[in-house]
Amino acid sequence: MSDIRILHEPELRAHVHLDITIVDVIETAFATLARGGVQMPPILSMHMPQVNGEVDVKTAYVPGLPGFAVKISPGFFDNPAKGLPSTSGLMVVLSTETGRVQAVLLDNGYLTDIRTAAAGGVAARHLAPTDARRAAIFGAGLQARLQLQALRLVRPIRKAVIWARDPAKAQALAADLSDDALNVRASADPAEAAGFADVIVTTTPATEPILRAEWLRAGQHVTAMGSDQAGKAELEPACLARADLYVADRVSQTRLMGELRGALEAGVLADGANLPELGQVITGAHPGRTDPEQITIADLTGTGIQDTAIASHVLALI
Amino acid sequence: MSDIRILHEPELRAHVHLDITIVDVIETAFATLARGGVQMPPILSMHMPQVNGEVDVKTAYVPGLPGFAVKISPGFFDNPAKGLPSTSGLMVVLSTETGRVQAVLLDNGYLTDIRTAAAGGVAARHLAPTDARRAAIFGAGLQARLQLQALRLVRPIRKAVIWARDPAKAQALAADLSDDALNVRASADPAEAAGFADVIVTTTPATEPILRAEWLRAGQHVTAMGSDQAGKAELEPACLARADLYVADRVSQTRLMGELRGALEAGVLADGANLPELGQVITGAHPGRTDPEQITIADLTGTGIQDTAIASHVLALI
Repeated sequence: MSDIRILHEPELRAHVHLDITIVDVIETAFATLARGGVQMPPILSMHMPQVNGEVDVKTAYVPGLPGFAVKISPGFFDNPAKGLPSTSGLMVVLSTETGRVQAVLLDNGYLTDIRTAAAGGVAARHLAPTDARRAAIFGAGLQARLQLQALRLVRPIRKAVIWARDPAKAQALAADLSDDALNVRASADPAEAAGFADVIVTTTPATEPILRAEWLRAGQHVTAMGSDQAGKAELEPACLARADLYVADRVSQTRLMGELRGALEAGVLADGANLPELGQVITGAHPGRTDPEQITIADLTGTGIQDTAIASHVLALI
Repeated sequence: MSDIRILHEPELRAHVHLDITIVDVIETAFATLARGGVQMPPILSMHMPQVNGEVDVKTAYVPGLPGFAVKISPGFFDNPAKGLPSTSGLMVVLSTETGRVQAVLLDNGYLTDIRTAAAGGVAARHLAPTDARRAAIFGAGLQARLQLQALRLVRPIRKAVIWARDPAKAQALAADLSDDALNVRASADPAEAAGFADVIVTTTPATEPILRAEWLRAGQHVTAMGSDQAGKAELEPACLARADLYVADRVSQTRLMGELRGALEAGVLADGANLPELGQVITGAHPGRTDPEQITIADLTGTGIQDTAIASHVLALI
């Protein structure tokens, strides 16, 4: 009846995991973006205040790949009260030769979760101190779990601390994530948690900063990945001024919906020109961290090329 | 494995046709848009010059409907040489309560063709002279065929003339569309074709105007529906100055990618403010045509609410 492949969530979960292969796939995607030739239009974003929901659509065309993904990501924030996750969605893969639909990946947001966490792994691999052993995670949701897992793929993390607005959730996550090779504790003091870590990942829906510049210390790397809408922010704008190096996944996006937005509004950065992107650090077009004592920040908003990359990987795999 | 409904093109073609029911569905959609409460963000558009392709994504949230559509429309213009239609795509329907995927309509663009033609029917129903018997169609593609069919649903069309850049295609279409109740001929002279008709529909991919203002005469209605990208135009800008009434499907879109764009650039309209939309004419918020001798123009670029409307109709029907 149709030669369109339909893959459901259980099949995708069985074959695709957050592992070093996926980190490599996402790293290659960012490198490709930096090398040029990629088409990646602005995100389509629709807000539905009547139902406390939103939907984002992302896409990117990558020359040489047989297909490109159009990813539909809804976020409906009354869902948890109904026993459902806030986010879901799917990816549609279209042929780069004909535009015909090749596949529909009914992942309910699973591939987005994985490719988002993998970007955190890529950022840490290229920006965190190579001997980073201590991590702080701000947030206690699914990405808190996945971001810590991604860090462990690229750095010798031995200890981690979780801070969250809800201390009970931080404690539960810490207990759940501890294992023989990793000691995880919760902290009620975000300054203490920040000061403890070599790598900090913020992964919250915060609309007011949760990480202060005065808490940062030499040699740290921060990945801020919670902010993906114009109304969100996790880092005090002064963090960006304090950092020796700021790297965006895509400057045109972080300027509108990442941590860069608040920093530009606060005037702590002169302008947003000539800021490096993660892909440029990967390819070597930008030197990245040049000293173990530098403070680095990666500002991740999520890009369509990550979706095209993971969808293409999945279709080659399954 | 999943409660997501997957409907394929043959099933959709068997149940959904261009008939007065669909014209009513699309009319209701435009009226709803005019009454307010609808969310309809700017179109996501990605151009892929490397493969002579583009993809558009449209969506709209309509309060009260159980779902909203996200419609993915690729156009790959080297396809005809491969024996494939240029356009294809699908619609995804998400729950307005939870954002979860409810259905995937694998229509290969069929529902887009139908809802696009139906909008032509709605425009003619509200703007063309009630006794319009003669139609001119500029273009000889699938929409030329469908637009004439839509006109016949709302006006007593008895004679039609087809003009197309390729006279052989115009002649073939004219022969094919003639029946006992309708005389259809081809014309090699666009001025003659325009002058003949009570209703003119332009449905071409033209990038330079194909309809001149001097060809228009009192009492005519023109629906221009070919232009849906910033590089396209079918009407000489002076047509909009000559018309007594200009109506957009959505002014924010026609300003960027419809006939309004060229008219504003040419300076023939003072500005684009306070121009009526089709939904306002339907609801009576704007009087529409007030005299049989007026010249009216409908500028249709295609809107996400048409997609949500037809997708919702389909899911209630099948």
